[in-house]
Amino acid sequence: MTAHKNIAVLLLTCPDQPGLVSRIADFVFKNGGNILDLDEHADPYEKEFALRLAWDYSDFTIEKEDIASEFAKLAQTLKAQWRIQFREPPLRLAVFVSRYQHCLLELLWRYSLNEFPAEISVIISNHKDSEKIAEQYQIPFYHYPIDAKIKDTQEKKELELLKDHQIDTIVLARYMQILSKRFTEAYPNQIINIHHSFLPAFAGADPYRKAHQRGVKIIGATSHYVTADLDEGPIIEQDITRISHKDSVEDLIRKGRDLERLVFARAIRLHCEHRVLVRGNKTLVFE
Amino acid sequence: MTAHKNIAVLLLTCPDQPGLVSRIADFVFKNGGNILDLDEHADPYEKEFALRLAWDYSDFTIEKEDIASEFAKLAQTLKAQWRIQFREPPLRLAVFVSRYQHCLLELLWRYSLNEFPAEISVIISNHKDSEKIAEQYQIPFYHYPIDAKIKDTQEKKELELLKDHQIDTIVLARYMQILSKRFTEAYPNQIINIHHSFLPAFAGADPYRKAHQRGVKIIGATSHYVTADLDEGPIIEQDITRISHKDSVEDLIRKGRDLERLVFARAIRLHCEHRVLVRGNKTLVFE
Amino acid sequence: MTAHKNIAVLLLTCPDQPGLVSRIADFVFKNGGNILDLDEHADPYEKEFALRLAWDYSDFTIEKEDIASEFAKLAQTLKAQWRIQFREPPLRLAVFVSRYQHCLLELLWRYSLNEFPAEISVIISNHKDSEKIAEQYQIPFYHYPIDAKIKDTQEKKELELLKDHQIDTIVLARYMQILSKRFTEAYPNQIINIHHSFLPAFAGADPYRKAHQRGVKIIGATSHYVTADLDEGPIIEQDITRISHKDSVEDLIRKGRDLERLVFARAIRLHCEHRVLVRGNKTLVFE
Amino acid sequence: MTAHKNIAVLLLTCPDQPGLVSRIADFVFKNGGNILDLDEHADPYEKEFALRLAWDYSDFTIEKEDIASEFAKLAQTLKAQWRIQFREPPLRLAVFVSRYQHCLLELLWRYSLNEFPAEISVIISNHKDSEKIAEQYQIPFYHYPIDAKIKDTQEKKELELLKDHQIDTIVLARYMQILSKRFTEAYPNQIINIHHSFLPAFAGADPYRKAHQRGVKIIGATSHYVTADLDEGPIIEQDITRISHKDSVEDLIRKGRDLERLVFARAIRLHCEHRVLVRGNKTLVFE
Repeated sequence: MTAHKNIAVLLLTCPDQPGLVSRIADFVFKNGGNILDLDEHADPYEKEFALRLAWDYSDFTIEKEDIASEFAKLAQTLKAQWRIQFREPPLRLAVFVSRYQHCLLELLWRYSLNEFPAEISVIISNHKDSEKIAEQYQIPFYHYPIDAKIKDTQEKKELELLKDHQIDTIVLARYMQILSKRFTEAYPNQIINIHHSFLPAFAGADPYRKAHQRGVKIIGATSHYVTADLDEGPIIEQDITRISHKDSVEDLIRKGRDLERLVFARAIRLHCEHRVLVRGNKTLVFE
Repeated sequence: MTAHKNIAVLLLTCPDQPGLVSRIADFVFKNGGNILDLDEHADPYEKEFALRLAWDYSDFTIEKEDIASEFAKLAQTLKAQWRIQFREPPLRLAVFVSRYQHCLLELLWRYSLNEFPAEISVIISNHKDSEKIAEQYQIPFYHYPIDAKIKDTQEKKELELLKDHQIDTIVLARYMQILSKRFTEAYPNQIINIHHSFLPAFAGADPYRKAHQRGVKIIGATSHYVTADLDEGPIIEQDITRISHKDSVEDLIRKGRDLERLVFARAIRLHCEHRVLVRGNKTLVFE
Repeated sequence: MTAHKNIAVLLLTCPDQPGLVSRIADFVFKNGGNILDLDEHADPYEKEFALRLAWDYSDFTIEKEDIASEFAKLAQTLKAQWRIQFREPPLRLAVFVSRYQHCLLELLWRYSLNEFPAEISVIISNHKDSEKIAEQYQIPFYHYPIDAKIKDTQEKKELELLKDHQIDTIVLARYMQILSKRFTEAYPNQIINIHHSFLPAFAGADPYRKAHQRGVKIIGATSHYVTADLDEGPIIEQDITRISHKDSVEDLIRKGRDLERLVFARAIRLHCEHRVLVRGNKTLVFE
Repeated sequence: MTAHKNIAVLLLTCPDQPGLVSRIADFVFKNGGNILDLDEHADPYEKEFALRLAWDYSDFTIEKEDIASEFAKLAQTLKAQWRIQFREPPLRLAVFVSRYQHCLLELLWRYSLNEFPAEISVIISNHKDSEKIAEQYQIPFYHYPIDAKIKDTQEKKELELLKDHQIDTIVLARYMQILSKRFTEAYPNQIINIHHSFLPAFAGADPYRKAHQRGVKIIGATSHYVTADLDEGPIIEQDITRISHKDSVEDLIRKGRDLERLVFARAIRLHCEHRVLVRGNKTLVFE
């Protein structure tokens, strides 16, 4: 997409008013930045303005560590919610996985091809199955078995580990444990799940069986941010595939795997490129 | 698809056992029929056999009106549920419509191109808006305004009208009234609805608004047989289209119209070609 | 999409350099405009910048008729190719049609629902078949039969007619005559065709038959600007549908009709909303 | 799809005539077979009949090794082209690969999940890159460097190796060498290639660059049997994905990889389940 190295990304929403693009673009231009990509949207019904702006800050007259505080002055006058992020250093990811490995493998394969700008810093699992794969990719692997009794203790250890590894984002690659509220609230809009249905249809357990029972003609997969409400968080990406009455539940599982892998990978890429802005329970995705 | 005129179609399900295809094909062959299309499926889990068989009965040694009773003897030994239908005369359709005309217009356009083997015998509406269109296509139009007080009386009149016109199948082209249980049970698996969501997501009223609120990345449309449970009947066909955060509810309505038209038309075509077999609350669609 | 009435749209390309967005946005802001939509793209390989900017000019301090000449000063310093267009008055369209009416009917139906901001000013055909439809929609209809001998004379008359009706854009709704070079050059990037294949596959005559012969598993439709080279102009929109060996050429024609209608309608909408920028033989489509 | 172990599959074409299904089904039934899946198609234009029939031969009264010769008697009276294949032992595959590994890795991953009924017996490459991967999966790896001078000699060695390993089917997982006529004719309809375009568009080298230059809005991938004419063989499977003007050639390569993997895997699965019947330069795919 780009050969630029020093990329800053601003994601911002605020009440709509004239001159917003001009004033924000000016902040970048006047300080020596070069705009690489600007996408904005003004919702004419809710009078809300949203913007994603990526710029090259190689010749910026503001020091990298001061950019946010400088921009804050402008943001305040706009009553904006915003964040500025940098491509370097890349986001640090922790992958949680249980027994199914297809999402993990897909991720590692794309990682090895540099398909998304992030570093997979650690793999965490409640099973030992993926230890060897982690080893092949030379990524630290941690095994935290979970059952009802020890769940609380284990989660605490996991949270500490995440802190130690300075993890920015957690991706749940078909991780079959429900995270506690404490856990999800520690990483707001920073935990990405892949659910094997076209949400909001077939939330909860066993969606392929439910889809088979209902006799739908299309199945889907959904990647979303995790909130305290299971499968109810902001949706990042979805996709579907056609099925027929000839498909058994096992066929749905097989066909669904391909969906899960692609949808999960696309969501992670969008997140790591700072293209996703959460407002309320919805996302704005700047593609 | 075919130049054949005298087409009979058998749709059948029964417990699986060896020799089913052979015995059924033999019934057709031995009596002088020519098989045009045979599709079958044996569910290895539920041990259920399902089959669609179309044949040319031009040289059949059994009279058309006796075919069903003759086949019944074989069917009994198989413990089969089945029906035999003929392409001629085509099914007689009644179209119910309210204010939105896109599904009606789509249907009439395809009808004028002979895209599906049926006769649109009558158009019924609770509004007068479509009277002129009906006139253009020289199809009888009946206006039955509905409100809570007169609904019962009006439905009775409609049912009588349907009987008078010897209607086989009712298609609800965005008809905004809920049919009574008496009505739906009078035409089991013979009433086709188009719902403007990807069922089971967003059943009930205002699905585009709900989809917008939930922030899904894909919207859909579903055509299904109408049962006493609103939006819960067997699904015949579904399709989807991608949306983004830039789409307002009005955009979803516009994009959804295209989906509704296509999905509804495909479902009606499948039904009229006798390609849909209902088992429980699911359909088997032999494409 | 918007309730705004006074919308101006700038489409621009120029060599990339720092400050472009800021300077262009400033032009709008400083003169009292309100940016509704801005999308830009800087190609890091070809060092080319492209932008679409829509703004509300209700309170603009520059008179509408002077906007272009004022902007020209800035554009010159940027070495830009550009145009500014207004939503009001809408583009004036001429529809050319031959015998197949599905694209014409689709267009008229969407027109009656105000799906695209344009006025269909005239329908022109080499056959009389569509005269009645034109009448229903109260659109002037002109019949210009074409054969090799009179083609040249007829085209001249058509060009005059287009001039009289102040036509901006010509849409070829399955018009089966090849336009002369003189004709296509009179309306550069203002003639939109629908070709019934996935270009560049199966250019020229009879694409469904060719697709059937080649045994492809997917067919498509392509809407493009017409240039002197048949089926070689800049592509605006494409879409596809799956087929199987069971589909005859007639089935492809039927399935293809649905594609043609949708792709053609989408291309016209994109064009009329001034979302299409032509560079060389390619389009940039700002969706 | 099925728990059956002893599956025989008949693929057959012949001139259409009455009684074909019945007579063929009878062969299976009378000899104690249980039909699992039957799909047939009679082309009303070319008067050609085609059929795929899968049956369980556990209780067959004909010995497995005599089935073909017994069926040949019936086939002769039908003037049929046909073959009978068995699920056990599975087809033996040789994978050819060059530098790009995504198709190889996808195949190996699906192989490890038993997604298709085949045995990957050997991996052959003109580079050493994939040696380690082969080792991980414990599959013999052979390195045959190719250049113009030694190509002939190397191909001979490869053909011998394939013979030694009793290879049934060769799959070219982005193998960047053109096979000689001698080679392709040694394995008619048994060599499967993945081409990174929507054939017949962009045949030959560098299809993503060509697609980028032409400005198409959709790219594709095609899996086909290899014949002496490069990229002209019978198409097994195709799929597509949308692109925009913002996508560079590198983006097309990245997006295309996902297509290639899926299309290639689906084609191989269809082939290994004996669902593909070649007639002339086209395939009939019984899904």
